[in-house]
Amino acid sequence: MWKTEMEKEDQLLNQLLQSRSIAMEKIKASQQSFILVASLLDRIPNLAGLARTCEVFKAAGLAISDASIIHDKQFQLISVTADKWVPIIEVPVSSVKVFLEKKQQEGFSILGLEQTANSIPLDQYIFPKKTVLVLGREKEGIPVDIIHVLDACVEIPQLGVVRSLNVHVSGAIALWEYTRQQRSQQP
Amino acid sequence: MWKTEMEKEDQLLNQLLQSRSIAMEKIKASQQSFILVASLLDRIPNLAGLARTCEVFKAAGLAISDASIIHDKQFQLISVTADKWVPIIEVPVSSVKVFLEKKQQEGFSILGLEQTANSIPLDQYIFPKKTVLVLGREKEGIPVDIIHVLDACVEIPQLGVVRSLNVHVSGAIALWEYTRQQRSQQP
Repeated sequence: MWKTEMEKEDQLLNQLLQSRSIAMEKIKASQQSFILVASLLDRIPNLAGLARTCEVFKAAGLAISDASIIHDKQFQLISVTADKWVPIIEVPVSSVKVFLEKKQQEGFSILGLEQTANSIPLDQYIFPKKTVLVLGREKEGIPVDIIHVLDACVEIPQLGVVRSLNVHVSGAIALWEYTRQQRSQQP
Repeated sequence: MWKTEMEKEDQLLNQLLQSRSIAMEKIKASQQSFILVASLLDRIPNLAGLARTCEVFKAAGLAISDASIIHDKQFQLISVTADKWVPIIEVPVSSVKVFLEKKQQEGFSILGLEQTANSIPLDQYIFPKKTVLVLGREKEGIPVDIIHVLDACVEIPQLGVVRSLNVHVSGAIALWEYTRQQRSQQP
C-alpha cells in the first residue's frame, strides 16, 4: 500500500519537475540573445532604468559591476521589480575584458555603443542575432583597452548642437533597433 | 560725404540682416517636422530628458504645460542647456486639444504613443513627414477626450512581464524610429 502511495508521489513530483522545466525553457526561448554590459556605468538611475528597459525587450542579461545595488531603494523604485525578471550578471569593471572575450568565444559579436571615427551609424548596422553591447562610462565613454576587444562600434546619429543622449536612452534606442531588426526577420 | 557713409552703413546692415536670415533658415531647414507633446507629463526628470532628446534629434518643438520649469535647477541639470536649442512651446493641459486641432489643420498627423486595442506596432507604422506625437501621463496615459482627436495610436511592442517603458524612453524610441525612417528616405 505505502509503496503505491510513494509511487504516486514520485509520479506527481516528476510531472511537476517536467512542467517546471518546460516553463523555464519557454522563458529562455522567448529571450533575445542580447546581453547589455553596463558595468562601466556609475549612476543608479541609469542602471535601474536599463534593467527596466532590458526586461521590456527580454534581453538575455544585464551585466553590472556590483549586483548588490539591486537592493538599493532608488534602484528598486525606478526598476519596478524588473531585476526579478531580467538576469543580472555581476561583472566588475576589472573583469569586463575577460567577460567579453569569453562571450566572443561563445559566438557573440561584441559591440560598443560609442561615437568614434570608425563607428557605424545605428541605422546602417545589421545586428547579429547573438549580440553583446557595451555601454560607455557616463562621461569618459569606453576605455581604450576595452575598445580593442570590440568587433565593431555603432553610434546613434545625433543631429543637434548639444550632441549627447543620456546613456540609458542610448542603450534603449540600440536595444529597440536590435529588437526591430529581429522582429523583421521573423516569419 | 555723410550721405555716402550712411549708404555704406545701410548696405552693411542689409548684408548682416540677410546673412542672419540665411543662418536662421538653415537652422529651420535642418529641423525635423516633428513636434513632441509632453504637456500631460508631470515629472521634471522626464521633461528635461525629453528636451535633451528632442535637441539631439532636432525636433521642431517640445510642448510642455508650463514653460517656467526650464528655470528649475533639476531641469537645467538634466537637459544640459538643450532648452536653448529646441523650441519650447507652452501648451497647458486645458489647451492640448485645441493645439492638436490647429496642428491638424496645418497638415500635421496627430499621433498618440499609447497601448490601446487599436494601436499600431511602432515597427509597422510609416510616420508621415509632418508628425505631432502626444505622450501620455506617467500613470494614466492619454485621456479619452484627447484620444478622440488622434489620427492614430502607435505602441512600442513590449515583450516582458513588467510591460512598461519609462515615458522618456518611449518618446525617445519613437523619435529615433521617426528619424530612422526620414533618413532612409533621403537621397
